[in-house]
Amino acid sequence: MVCSFLRMSRRSVVNFVRLGTRAVSLLYGNSLRPFHTPVCNASSQPKTGFKPGKVAVVTKTTRYEFEQQRYLYAGLSEEDLKQLLAMKGSSYSGLLERHNIHTNNVEHIVKSLRREGIEVRVVKRGEYDEEVVRWADAILSAGGDGTMLLVASKVLSKDKPVVGVNTDPERSEGHLCLPVRYTHAFPEALEKLCRGEFRWLWRQRIRVHLEGTGINPTSVDLHEQQLSLQQHSQAHRNTTMDSQQRTGTLHDSFSKTSLLPIRSLNEIFIGESLSSRVKLNSFKPHVNILLHRASYYEISVDDGPWEKQKSSGLSICTGTGSKAWSYNINKLAEQAVEEVLKIGKSQTGLDIPLNSDIIEKVTDEYNESLVFSPDDRRLFYSIREPIVNRVFSSSQQRGFASRVSVRSRCWDACMVVDGGTSFEFNDGAIATISMSEEDQLRTVVLEH
Amino acid sequence: MVCSFLRMSRRSVVNFVRLGTRAVSLLYGNSLRPFHTPVCNASSQPKTGFKPGKVAVVTKTTRYEFEQQRYLYAGLSEEDLKQLLAMKGSSYSGLLERHNIHTNNVEHIVKSLRREGIEVRVVKRGEYDEEVVRWADAILSAGGDGTMLLVASKVLSKDKPVVGVNTDPERSEGHLCLPVRYTHAFPEALEKLCRGEFRWLWRQRIRVHLEGTGINPTSVDLHEQQLSLQQHSQAHRNTTMDSQQRTGTLHDSFSKTSLLPIRSLNEIFIGESLSSRVKLNSFKPHVNILLHRASYYEISVDDGPWEKQKSSGLSICTGTGSKAWSYNINKLAEQAVEEVLKIGKSQTGLDIPLNSDIIEKVTDEYNESLVFSPDDRRLFYSIREPIVNRVFSSSQQRGFASRVSVRSRCWDACMVVDGGTSFEFNDGAIATISMSEEDQLRTVVLEH
Repeated sequence: MVCSFLRMSRRSVVNFVRLGTRAVSLLYGNSLRPFHTPVCNASSQPKTGFKPGKVAVVTKTTRYEFEQQRYLYAGLSEEDLKQLLAMKGSSYSGLLERHNIHTNNVEHIVKSLRREGIEVRVVKRGEYDEEVVRWADAILSAGGDGTMLLVASKVLSKDKPVVGVNTDPERSEGHLCLPVRYTHAFPEALEKLCRGEFRWLWRQRIRVHLEGTGINPTSVDLHEQQLSLQQHSQAHRNTTMDSQQRTGTLHDSFSKTSLLPIRSLNEIFIGESLSSRVKLNSFKPHVNILLHRASYYEISVDDGPWEKQKSSGLSICTGTGSKAWSYNINKLAEQAVEEVLKIGKSQTGLDIPLNSDIIEKVTDEYNESLVFSPDDRRLFYSIREPIVNRVFSSSQQRGFASRVSVRSRCWDACMVVDGGTSFEFNDGAIATISMSEEDQLRTVVLEH
Repeated sequence: MVCSFLRMSRRSVVNFVRLGTRAVSLLYGNSLRPFHTPVCNASSQPKTGFKPGKVAVVTKTTRYEFEQQRYLYAGLSEEDLKQLLAMKGSSYSGLLERHNIHTNNVEHIVKSLRREGIEVRVVKRGEYDEEVVRWADAILSAGGDGTMLLVASKVLSKDKPVVGVNTDPERSEGHLCLPVRYTHAFPEALEKLCRGEFRWLWRQRIRVHLEGTGINPTSVDLHEQQLSLQQHSQAHRNTTMDSQQRTGTLHDSFSKTSLLPIRSLNEIFIGESLSSRVKLNSFKPHVNILLHRASYYEISVDDGPWEKQKSSGLSICTGTGSKAWSYNINKLAEQAVEEVLKIGKSQTGLDIPLNSDIIEKVTDEYNESLVFSPDDRRLFYSIREPIVNRVFSSSQQRGFASRVSVRSRCWDACMVVDGGTSFEFNDGAIATISMSEEDQLRTVVLEH
């Protein structure tokens, strides 16, 4: 049933927002007064609900669009594209089908919003920026989890609601999105929002302080950046040299601490990655794609003692992220659990049952223990594939913390935020990773 | 006690080698007749031993040398270098000390060889090539495991012996090198070789057939390549386009199968890596360092059915490599084993002891089971961090095989050989990974 609303004039809404946002935000929780004053049922007590006046719909780029742009610019026709994809064993029609499913779902969503009198602006991921965030009362991500991460990355305030709709449920897990059934029945979701049949979920996010990098740390936007990494590293090093020459002292510029302008919704991952050696004059440039190169660093948990570590990387995640990369790093396959129990049986002499039922139960319980709540205020760190030997410690491989500090001992490492933004994190740099309530992301959980 | 030798003239040695190499190689094992005819003890029966006439000593580049070259070219003095390193918390004197330890150990080795009348050629890793391999009767790697991998990478014959000496035992594990005590007492090792107090260890290696890549696959040498990866990808794609236009049919050039000119001593690793989008005209170039981007592929073990997989990568290793990256991918920390046993206890109701002794024993036994013999003719595949959901299978996460085929479904993936050479492995390409006796690498194991 479609609700009717009392509408305030645009100007008064804006004034309300300007004056009232702070006040409004203090009332968060199920009783939040929305931007408009919704009266869903004129005859009963007004129920609180949520109906934004302006919604930005941020859409993903489908694989089909990507391949098409790539080959179109190479001078190939649509027919050539079909043929090339077919040869690779990819299905042109499959890609087009997925593209159409996504596009249709976006249309469905946009229509549903407009039918409620909501002003909608559809924005491709490449066009999405801070101006769009400022304009919108709420932002809707139309894609998969990756699109949600992108959308969240530009929302730094805890007041602006973000809602994710999974536009390709067959292909995308959509952990961060509304349940799959709302994809084709979006008006139902809107209705629940309007009626207040939902709760706010404030997802905790991670903040990073960085010091010892020489200059204000420049980031590489892994989806949109114009520079190749080599150019980026070069530019970074050149700036370091210039800056040092200008100040006259190496020390000052080096040890400055900055709070990075990012908030991580899933995780921070630190590790060696591409290393492009400095390309200077006649010095022969090297390209090192040392994917498996061990990362060297020192780690201090909750201001504890520094420990040297060597591993394939370090993950620090939120409750939200505990279902993402961190989960895949830590989970066990039934094959491994079976083997552990088998050895436990032979070592202890106990008659531990090794039937598939028990193995599945133990495996599931183990893996489920890795997941925790998105509004939990703790971080979870995991040392991925630790290399333990005479030199490197073997204490906790993973655990909860309020705060984790990491000092890089890497040749050319990155700190990757939600798989989308990367910062140089080389020898000597120190990252302090923590959480603050003001960094929360406001999302919705609909009632059943 | 230093042996004395009967020496053949160089010409006759060369002739002996030319005529006799094939015959000689058939006699491999403890009774191999060496290039010279050694008579270690003139009064007793001649013992078979090994004493090459010409040895190439391939040395690693130390960290100190690397940093020095980097900053020297930037116009910084040695004093600036010291300061810069100090600020980063690195120790200039520490790097210099490690460098000197390495250099002194190399000198010790070279002197020991020359004292035996062996002709020695010292070659930096950048100068090491096929010509050096042809020249030498045996090759000695002076560095760590990385240097051994480099040395092995250019030895494609199973006849040419390779010996590794760990020149920085404090810092390097040296799994592929002689035991650490020989680093400072190299004459002892030489003596054993001379007396036949050793056995040959033929380490099995992996070969790769690749099809569906469009052109003869070009590799990126991860340590020495001049091109940035972006330029490399660009060049690769340009050549693909040209080649297609020339032949007139896309199909022919695409489906050609090649046996790659590499033999892997440790492992082949397949995964998504740096993706530099095609930079064409006005199309905005993207840089994607999707370190954690899932790799999509299909895998068939021992010609079994194809299975779709999504994971953070796939490792296929040899017995030698089972102690390297594969080991780190698969091993469990005590913390994880304890948790499994704890859950097993609660699920079964059995009183499984959870003391640190048992946990350590179970963990050690589990991890030791991951290691197998370098001369074992089987491959070992491991699906790293599998992502299991509705779409992707959950069969064996790892196991032995004679043959593994992989079809890429990746956007921009690499096949990385021993962490040193990388091949593009994109959507549609198929790699067939197997072993052949003729690919063995001849190494030594000294008797105690």
